[in-house]
Amino acid sequence: MRKKKRQPLTQKVVTDNQDDILMISANIDDQTPEMLAPVMPLLLEQGAYDVFFSGIQMKKNRPGIELNVLVDPGDQEAMIYTILKHTSTMGVRLQTWQRRIMRRHFETLTTSLGPVRIKVARYQDITKKTPEYEDCQKIAVAKHLTLQQVYQAVYQNL
Amino acid sequence: MRKKKRQPLTQKVVTDNQDDILMISANIDDQTPEMLAPVMPLLLEQGAYDVFFSGIQMKKNRPGIELNVLVDPGDQEAMIYTILKHTSTMGVRLQTWQRRIMRRHFETLTTSLGPVRIKVARYQDITKKTPEYEDCQKIAVAKHLTLQQVYQAVYQNL
Amino acid sequence: MRKKKRQPLTQKVVTDNQDDILMISANIDDQTPEMLAPVMPLLLEQGAYDVFFSGIQMKKNRPGIELNVLVDPGDQEAMIYTILKHTSTMGVRLQTWQRRIMRRHFETLTTSLGPVRIKVARYQDITKKTPEYEDCQKIAVAKHLTLQQVYQAVYQNL
Amino acid sequence: MRKKKRQPLTQKVVTDNQDDILMISANIDDQTPEMLAPVMPLLLEQGAYDVFFSGIQMKKNRPGIELNVLVDPGDQEAMIYTILKHTSTMGVRLQTWQRRIMRRHFETLTTSLGPVRIKVARYQDITKKTPEYEDCQKIAVAKHLTLQQVYQAVYQNL
Amino acid sequence: MRKKKRQPLTQKVVTDNQDDILMISANIDDQTPEMLAPVMPLLLEQGAYDVFFSGIQMKKNRPGIELNVLVDPGDQEAMIYTILKHTSTMGVRLQTWQRRIMRRHFETLTTSLGPVRIKVARYQDITKKTPEYEDCQKIAVAKHLTLQQVYQAVYQNL
Amino acid sequence: MRKKKRQPLTQKVVTDNQDDILMISANIDDQTPEMLAPVMPLLLEQGAYDVFFSGIQMKKNRPGIELNVLVDPGDQEAMIYTILKHTSTMGVRLQTWQRRIMRRHFETLTTSLGPVRIKVARYQDITKKTPEYEDCQKIAVAKHLTLQQVYQAVYQNL
Repeated sequence: MRKKKRQPLTQKVVTDNQDDILMISANIDDQTPEMLAPVMPLLLEQGAYDVFFSGIQMKKNRPGIELNVLVDPGDQEAMIYTILKHTSTMGVRLQTWQRRIMRRHFETLTTSLGPVRIKVARYQDITKKTPEYEDCQKIAVAKHLTLQQVYQAVYQNL
Repeated sequence: MRKKKRQPLTQKVVTDNQDDILMISANIDDQTPEMLAPVMPLLLEQGAYDVFFSGIQMKKNRPGIELNVLVDPGDQEAMIYTILKHTSTMGVRLQTWQRRIMRRHFETLTTSLGPVRIKVARYQDITKKTPEYEDCQKIAVAKHLTLQQVYQAVYQNL
Repeated sequence: MRKKKRQPLTQKVVTDNQDDILMISANIDDQTPEMLAPVMPLLLEQGAYDVFFSGIQMKKNRPGIELNVLVDPGDQEAMIYTILKHTSTMGVRLQTWQRRIMRRHFETLTTSLGPVRIKVARYQDITKKTPEYEDCQKIAVAKHLTLQQVYQAVYQNL
Repeated sequence: MRKKKRQPLTQKVVTDNQDDILMISANIDDQTPEMLAPVMPLLLEQGAYDVFFSGIQMKKNRPGIELNVLVDPGDQEAMIYTILKHTSTMGVRLQTWQRRIMRRHFETLTTSLGPVRIKVARYQDITKKTPEYEDCQKIAVAKHLTLQQVYQAVYQNL
Repeated sequence: MRKKKRQPLTQKVVTDNQDDILMISANIDDQTPEMLAPVMPLLLEQGAYDVFFSGIQMKKNRPGIELNVLVDPGDQEAMIYTILKHTSTMGVRLQTWQRRIMRRHFETLTTSLGPVRIKVARYQDITKKTPEYEDCQKIAVAKHLTLQQVYQAVYQNL
Repeated sequence: MRKKKRQPLTQKVVTDNQDDILMISANIDDQTPEMLAPVMPLLLEQGAYDVFFSGIQMKKNRPGIELNVLVDPGDQEAMIYTILKHTSTMGVRLQTWQRRIMRRHFETLTTSLGPVRIKVARYQDITKKTPEYEDCQKIAVAKHLTLQQVYQAVYQNL
């Protein structure tokens, strides 16, 4: 099976604001939560944009799980293969969604706690500036602060 | 293991309006929904007042299930035994709740579709009259009506 | 941004029984529930047909929220703009669904509690009559009754 | 209304690995859980591939239910009719998904507890063997074993 | 029934950091989401500290709702009465929890957008400063800003 | 704050079958899922027996999160401190549950894939044997197998 380490979408510079995305879904009622859980990081590692579980109530009183995977349409075959291999499902359903995304780039902000990357996203007259979670978490660990304290320090300089 | 077929609470004439009830709970992450599902009717058959599942997010990304069982405190040992036997959990947690219940009895209402039992519940100045679900469903099946049509016919005579 | 106050679908006389509807969705993990909540009435006020949240389990143990918005396809650009402006998401996904709807009109029912609008919906040989929630609630408040008492009074005359 | 008893998908020999499936969905906020519940087995009996409920948070603080039904596109009209007839919704939304399914057939395994059908599913180099739930449950009941004990006996021979 | 308008907990100056709180819960399967929804603001208005719904999977495939109400133990009888009157349940369960709370008081912060109350909470060496949601929302509406823009302005001065 | 690295319960030899456990809970509506997520591993690292999130519908349309932490009663103060420090909540609620647990010890099973620890749990005449998840996952990674393949190999020798 093709393996690849895609650069996560949130790290990419995005300049176009529209593309297509493929949703692959399956309802799971014969796999334990313990064995389903590692499928999430596995799919992300292989380049899925997003993976999420949703608790659903299935037939015969079964408290099942809906697995949802958002992928690049070009990764369709590899992703279907991985889902069929690592989950108990015998089939998946597929659907293309259009996507509208904000253009984004990174800036580095100097804060009292050190440099923090800021994701800057734009769409028409909207601008959003978001501190990079990973940078804030590293500072929190290094300086024995709570995440909240780090974010608050960043916001004071944003 | 002791087996018993308790008369479901909703069928009983209740004259006191306060008692104690035991909640037995377990978080499940290593049993499939398919194998957990039959535990619900099994516990009800053995006299549990109520059984319900709740989807929870457990450690290590596991989309787990919380099993909750409400039982008569006198059934504690039998119920713990059944849960430990038929689920994958290695332990349960227990807690007593106080319960406040409406006094209730049954009346029979003559409707255009035939007789329907009505549960009449009272608490201080509150009176509630509820058609018995099982009676309505039997009429719906027998007369090829929707449940909604049966309930509406009952409400017109209530 | 264009603002408009659409007449809610449930108030409209609907005579055709098929059209298209656009679903706009986003997975939110970096906005607080407190700040996400007012987006729901805001979107409804701008004409969204329906808005609903669904709790989802996202990557890295995040207990996220899926925002779903059902809109008239003609409102696509205005709705995307509002979602990007008032939520933390940097992108949305879009998809067109076909819709099949019952033809509906309103009748006024005279009840012992006063007049109540009844929504009458038809599809082939199916007819549903539903008391208007808002009318019932106003009567409940005005007459110090519970909603259940008002509905029961209405059903007796339906 | 047309009635038919479709052979459940999980019982069929599937030889092609791709087809289309129709999702029909509705958000329900004016029907009780008690009256919504029997719609699930009704739809399955009429040939739906899968039916599932998902708890959603709707407008005005309503803790609603999303009904999702996966059907053969050829059953579209019959299924829409049943949903509109037996639920309170005044409309449904429809969407076609592509489906990728594993080829599957049944084999019979001789176990210490008797014969058990094994569903064998294949896709490229993936092979999955799954004991039939119904067979295992019948053995569990007949021999006074837990489902877990039956599955473990089957796995030892798989 | 006794009616009272309690000052919401979040507005109070709290100086002790420990007390008892009563949880009143009920599982609802025979009331529509539409009719259950107004019970939430009604209970809050009568002084409940917190009210929340949780989607649960009940017996017979019912997608039910757990109603949870946190109240002052002194309000027990009034709250039970209201729940029994305005919901379909025929009983509630009760349990006392101990509560540990941060001491809190309000300060007023002058920001570029005007004055904003800041809730200051303390516990041992922990201090949290939280802008009052209602104040921020009023500014957002008055100045045509998003809530995010208001919070960011407040954080810069915190 | 006291820090300790408790041996996880699932790794311990448990010989008594009854003890008390403390549940600490909080409803969160003003912290992002992204910032709430790392609290889960932090609490487990400090010795919590179990931590789980549950999506709840809070007042004012807020899609909130209930945080639940099960701890040793002796850890009460340290755990409350950590929750108040790392989440946005201004208070927690506490309750003691009784716990009934199966006696357990570990055995090592020789399988075709190498040695795997088996957790053996006993309660009256019930015996459960569960392969250690961590052992199975290490084998899966080392031998490029799916978790399912490893478990199936283990079950064949159990």
